Amino acid sequence: MGKDTKSFMAMKGAGYYSRATIGAKHVMDNAAELVLDAVARMDPADDATMPFRITDMGAADGGTSLDLWRRVLGDIRARAPGRPIEIIYTDLPRNDFAQTFQNVHGLTGLKTYADEVPGVHVLASGTSFHQQILPAGTLDLGFSSTASHYITHVPGPIAEHVHMVGAAPGERALYAAKGAQDWEAMLLHRVAEMRPGARLCLFNFGIDAQGRYLGNTGGVNMFDTFARLWGDLRDRGVITGQEFRDTNFPQVYRTEAEFTAPLLDKNGPVHRAGLRLEHVEARVVRCPFEQDFTERHGDAAAFAEAYIPTLRSWSEPTFAAGLDSARPEEERADILNAFYAGYQSLVAAEPEGHAMDYVHIYLVARKAG
Amino acid sequence: MGKDTKSFMAMKGAGYYSRATIGAKHVMDNAAELVLDAVARMDPADDATMPFRITDMGAADGGTSLDLWRRVLGDIRARAPGRPIEIIYTDLPRNDFAQTFQNVHGLTGLKTYADEVPGVHVLASGTSFHQQILPAGTLDLGFSSTASHYITHVPGPIAEHVHMVGAAPGERALYAAKGAQDWEAMLLHRVAEMRPGARLCLFNFGIDAQGRYLGNTGGVNMFDTFARLWGDLRDRGVITGQEFRDTNFPQVYRTEAEFTAPLLDKNGPVHRAGLRLEHVEARVVRCPFEQDFTERHGDAAAFAEAYIPTLRSWSEPTFAAGLDSARPEEERADILNAFYAGYQSLVAAEPEGHAMDYVHIYLVARKAG
Repeated sequence: MGKDTKSFMAMKGAGYYSRATIGAKHVMDNAAELVLDAVARMDPADDATMPFRITDMGAADGGTSLDLWRRVLGDIRARAPGRPIEIIYTDLPRNDFAQTFQNVHGLTGLKTYADEVPGVHVLASGTSFHQQILPAGTLDLGFSSTASHYITHVPGPIAEHVHMVGAAPGERALYAAKGAQDWEAMLLHRVAEMRPGARLCLFNFGIDAQGRYLGNTGGVNMFDTFARLWGDLRDRGVITGQEFRDTNFPQVYRTEAEFTAPLLDKNGPVHRAGLRLEHVEARVVRCPFEQDFTERHGDAAAFAEAYIPTLRSWSEPTFAAGLDSARPEEERADILNAFYAGYQSLVAAEPEGHAMDYVHIYLVARKAG
Repeated sequence: MGKDTKSFMAMKGAGYYSRATIGAKHVMDNAAELVLDAVARMDPADDATMPFRITDMGAADGGTSLDLWRRVLGDIRARAPGRPIEIIYTDLPRNDFAQTFQNVHGLTGLKTYADEVPGVHVLASGTSFHQQILPAGTLDLGFSSTASHYITHVPGPIAEHVHMVGAAPGERALYAAKGAQDWEAMLLHRVAEMRPGARLCLFNFGIDAQGRYLGNTGGVNMFDTFARLWGDLRDRGVITGQEFRDTNFPQVYRTEAEFTAPLLDKNGPVHRAGLRLEHVEARVVRCPFEQDFTERHGDAAAFAEAYIPTLRSWSEPTFAAGLDSARPEEERADILNAFYAGYQSLVAAEPEGHAMDYVHIYLVARKAG
């Protein structure tokens, strides 16, 4: 969820992001086995002259993936004791990379691999994963979790919703096409970066075989709730119709078939470049705030208070961008505060069914050769 | 001047640093020929499989070196059209790397090489140059300007001054010894990173054969002025004697002999590791604010107003660190504002002789092999 979150996070202060994204961390911790399995299949050579290069793409402040990397880097170190490792945290240029380095280098109290695993060289890149980040043929392990649902730009408005999952069929088709185009380009950039035998582990928001997706796993649909509450503000004249129409998440949730298509099409450029599907599966990871509420405390107000920041941490930049820039900053802040307060009141009053369960498609690929 | 400047710079806003360090930029622009000559001697192979790796150590926001890199990267690209280039901006973890990436990627209006020179991959590292930044044998061109006068910690107090250039002989010997130790360690880390044939270009604050150093080139001595004005605050009871003693720049200015000693000592570890001196010289680069005053406008008040920020940009963290942390933040800010206002009044009243001329020792070395 690395995109466009910096100003909000800067406002809320260090640590807020990591707390609000504890679910994203669960997703990675649970999927570490998939990365470890990929490393085992690679069986990296203990070559002191060839750094083992890793990218963590869309890493934001690097906090959520620290535990995963502690395990994976420790495993690589055990397999190749003398091989230098380079791990490159990537995100957009405005990302708070100073926070990333402080987290990884152990200056913020988070448990890190930095003083545990020797021979690890930590780097960063401000190049978007929609472009080639590294020189050709230099990457051993590409990783990204909960990031590449962001597309380079929205392909069109969504008249009566805010996210492509609730768009009308014609609108949705534009998003699906844009999502397919960005995904193929993303994979082509990655396969160019990879050495033969390298692995790519991409854990992305998606739509599973039962039609489930983030915040829509049988209870109250989170994105429909966003759209309804944002629409209420429009109907009450708090925001304009134009502002509602201008509010569109620059995201595409893809199905398993959409994720795998470029890898399976033998005549397509991705397959021809050598990228091969090794593993794909869908998983649901339960919302930790809903689970706390249901299984532990049962306090609806406390649930609502803990739950809303996890939604707000990644959704606020989109709602903020929808507002007319001519509005004074304070007025925009008031609208956004009222919007999330409304969502919180709704959850506090009727908590049942609210949950931001994570639905990811987990994909592992290798470069042939 | 990358160290410890972030909070001050964050306070003053983007762009302030680049304006205040225009002299540091002149130093680099004037010395670009030394880097171009080093590249010519390397004659880099046009090898698409081996990235040409560069470090810009202590790069801060990357703004001051952009013009130098436009020339050098363009030259490398012409010599090796198909060879990928990686340039790694390094500084301490708290450095504002988001600003660095935005400057380099052309998001702040500064003229950059990013859209001119193809095949350049921009990276960053939050690892201190007092440690090994890159894996062994992977660096082609190491560069640092106006940064490695910073030592890892102060070796002792300076009773009646704030900088080692004004310390008593016994105090000064401790600084010189610490400076020698850090310099040798710094060179050992660099030579380990370098490939055989790689070059190292280090342009550092130093003391020339005439005893000149930053802000001491024949007129009013800048560091003596710092010490006198800070001492006045002590004598007037604004700061305590302990605070005065606790104010010590964590810097060592080295002579040409001190810079070259580890390279020339054939029995020492740096020479044994293969680092060889190719070029050394001292240069004075004139203070642009004094030059403007003397040759152009002649307005003492305007000179003082433009001049003080260039001193403050790098010195304030040291004076701030000397103050008792028990003082309320506002009180500390008031003291610092009064201190620099005092310096400004002094310059406005008697401008003659004030100048922060830059005195650098320029050193180029290669790794044998």
